[in-house]
Amino acid sequence: MSEMRNDIFANRWVIVEMTPAVEMSALRFRRFAPLAAGCQFCEHHEDETPPEIFAIRKPGSPANGPGWSVRVVPSARPRLRVEGGLDRRAEGFHDLMNGIGAHEVIIETPRHDQSLHQMEAAEIANLLRACVARILDLRKDERMRYALIFKNHGEDAGAHTTGHSISQLMALPVTPRSITSKLNVARDYYAAKERCIYCDVLRQELKDQRRLVGENADFVAIAPFASRFPFEMAIFPKHHSSDFSRTPPEAIDNLARLLREVLGRLDRALGSPPYNLALQDSPRLRRKAGYWATIEQDFHWHLEILPQVFPTEGFEWASGFYYNPVSPEAAAKCLSDQ
Amino acid sequence: MSEMRNDIFANRWVIVEMTPAVEMSALRFRRFAPLAAGCQFCEHHEDETPPEIFAIRKPGSPANGPGWSVRVVPSARPRLRVEGGLDRRAEGFHDLMNGIGAHEVIIETPRHDQSLHQMEAAEIANLLRACVARILDLRKDERMRYALIFKNHGEDAGAHTTGHSISQLMALPVTPRSITSKLNVARDYYAAKERCIYCDVLRQELKDQRRLVGENADFVAIAPFASRFPFEMAIFPKHHSSDFSRTPPEAIDNLARLLREVLGRLDRALGSPPYNLALQDSPRLRRKAGYWATIEQDFHWHLEILPQVFPTEGFEWASGFYYNPVSPEAAAKCLSDQ
Repeated sequence: MSEMRNDIFANRWVIVEMTPAVEMSALRFRRFAPLAAGCQFCEHHEDETPPEIFAIRKPGSPANGPGWSVRVVPSARPRLRVEGGLDRRAEGFHDLMNGIGAHEVIIETPRHDQSLHQMEAAEIANLLRACVARILDLRKDERMRYALIFKNHGEDAGAHTTGHSISQLMALPVTPRSITSKLNVARDYYAAKERCIYCDVLRQELKDQRRLVGENADFVAIAPFASRFPFEMAIFPKHHSSDFSRTPPEAIDNLARLLREVLGRLDRALGSPPYNLALQDSPRLRRKAGYWATIEQDFHWHLEILPQVFPTEGFEWASGFYYNPVSPEAAAKCLSDQ
Repeated sequence: MSEMRNDIFANRWVIVEMTPAVEMSALRFRRFAPLAAGCQFCEHHEDETPPEIFAIRKPGSPANGPGWSVRVVPSARPRLRVEGGLDRRAEGFHDLMNGIGAHEVIIETPRHDQSLHQMEAAEIANLLRACVARILDLRKDERMRYALIFKNHGEDAGAHTTGHSISQLMALPVTPRSITSKLNVARDYYAAKERCIYCDVLRQELKDQRRLVGENADFVAIAPFASRFPFEMAIFPKHHSSDFSRTPPEAIDNLARLLREVLGRLDRALGSPPYNLALQDSPRLRRKAGYWATIEQDFHWHLEILPQVFPTEGFEWASGFYYNPVSPEAAAKCLSDQ
């Protein structure tokens, strides 16, 4: 039997399979397999990338040389470019603008043989600090509305470089649809109750425990009630916060620890599965301030972990709904047992 | 350089690559490869499926025996089940209901070695008639709000049977999100202008010609301005119609001819690519009649053809936006040249 479950934050239905025999047997994926050889993202290959925008380095080490732990460079194959104006315009009924934005590669580690969950928590904390630094810098660009941070791990999750562990940042001239739909739900809920919808649901999940995967003093990881993907997880700050970049330094350390822990559990549970990470942060809201005036109270940033272990197909593209062959309760139990 | 283009019907942004050198070289897919052996969907294997719900057969041939050209059976691995009540309920903040619906397999041909584009137009017309018959039958079920018809062709499009050419039908107790967002846009446009937004855009596309892939007296196939996927196409009735099931018999023949033509062009252009089909039809609107009272005037059904030749990855899941490495104009030209 299956259940139809509604994602309260995105108002999206998911068909969740509740038959234990179906669950693990339905998964199909190519496991993550890094290449053995080094690449342009490795230490000592710094001259093979565009010049760095940001790095966390040993004191005294020169830019674009070795000695770094995280390094941010422009994408060599940018999907959006920084130079030029947006030139918002119409072609008859169609709206378009130039592909203006930023597309950066965040090299998470100097070592080619190290995946994110294998890094030390202190190294992951440096990665998170680099993300904060880039978000704050890109907010200065008046053309940009949103800094999107995501990661593709493994071929079935869209990674197509050498297997070196990277994240990507795209600064966009419009706020993404996935964010605006969540902002709308959160705004309406807050308008009715003067409470954050995320805080309310998290309190329930912490009490319920069935979908809890991990927690520490500052963060909690759950398998969302209406997970789109098998073994999906989301990490939320326990204390209300709409803005990832304002995370206090000691909380960054706790986020790094929890991220390392749950990615390690995922890796052991499924055997090196491909996955995507997606930071769901509040936008820079210069133009829409009136409409989303309560965003600091009503939106609650989070990090989505989206394993790609079951194909998205015609059903999803035709409907905008999802079919998930593994119940979040079964996934949370399996992850907690690792 | 890229452009950011807005899908006027779904209000969704797509980054479209406009650099010719990037376009075809970016595509990555496993070509469709049917298995040689027969399967439970082949003629003379009728006893290996659940009993048929509908078939178009030679006069006098008995149900569940050979002699059919299209055959509809319940899915052997149903994601939703017909038996039982919906039992809409809440678990704390979460909304859910039982997985009630219908999940049917539409066997498009008795022959294992024949893909949809290789079938005769008359055979495809029978498939379309079977879809109409099933939609009309399922509308009688008061629990169902929407009959979703889709197809997965090839492994990278989510097909995981034997390679036999099938479509699927799922009757759902809620209207899909992809449809409601289009209905909202169409309703608001009609409220402002008393014109169908689809009719307006189609008139422009027919005049513009750059994204035209094929047409006949009743239907037109275009590469949508803000295509999410490389070589995406959509087929629209030229004469306004909100309801696929009301397509006149002679127009069904023309739809079959155009579908056969453009799928053949796609197959030749890319070399047996995987793809999804998604019918975007109006819902059964018992409960929402007031809200969408103008649906017959404002919505315009269409069929989406979605080649899966470039991976969806973290960017798409994080943003709800898309990156398309092939411009619709380049795709339309390439398809028209076949």
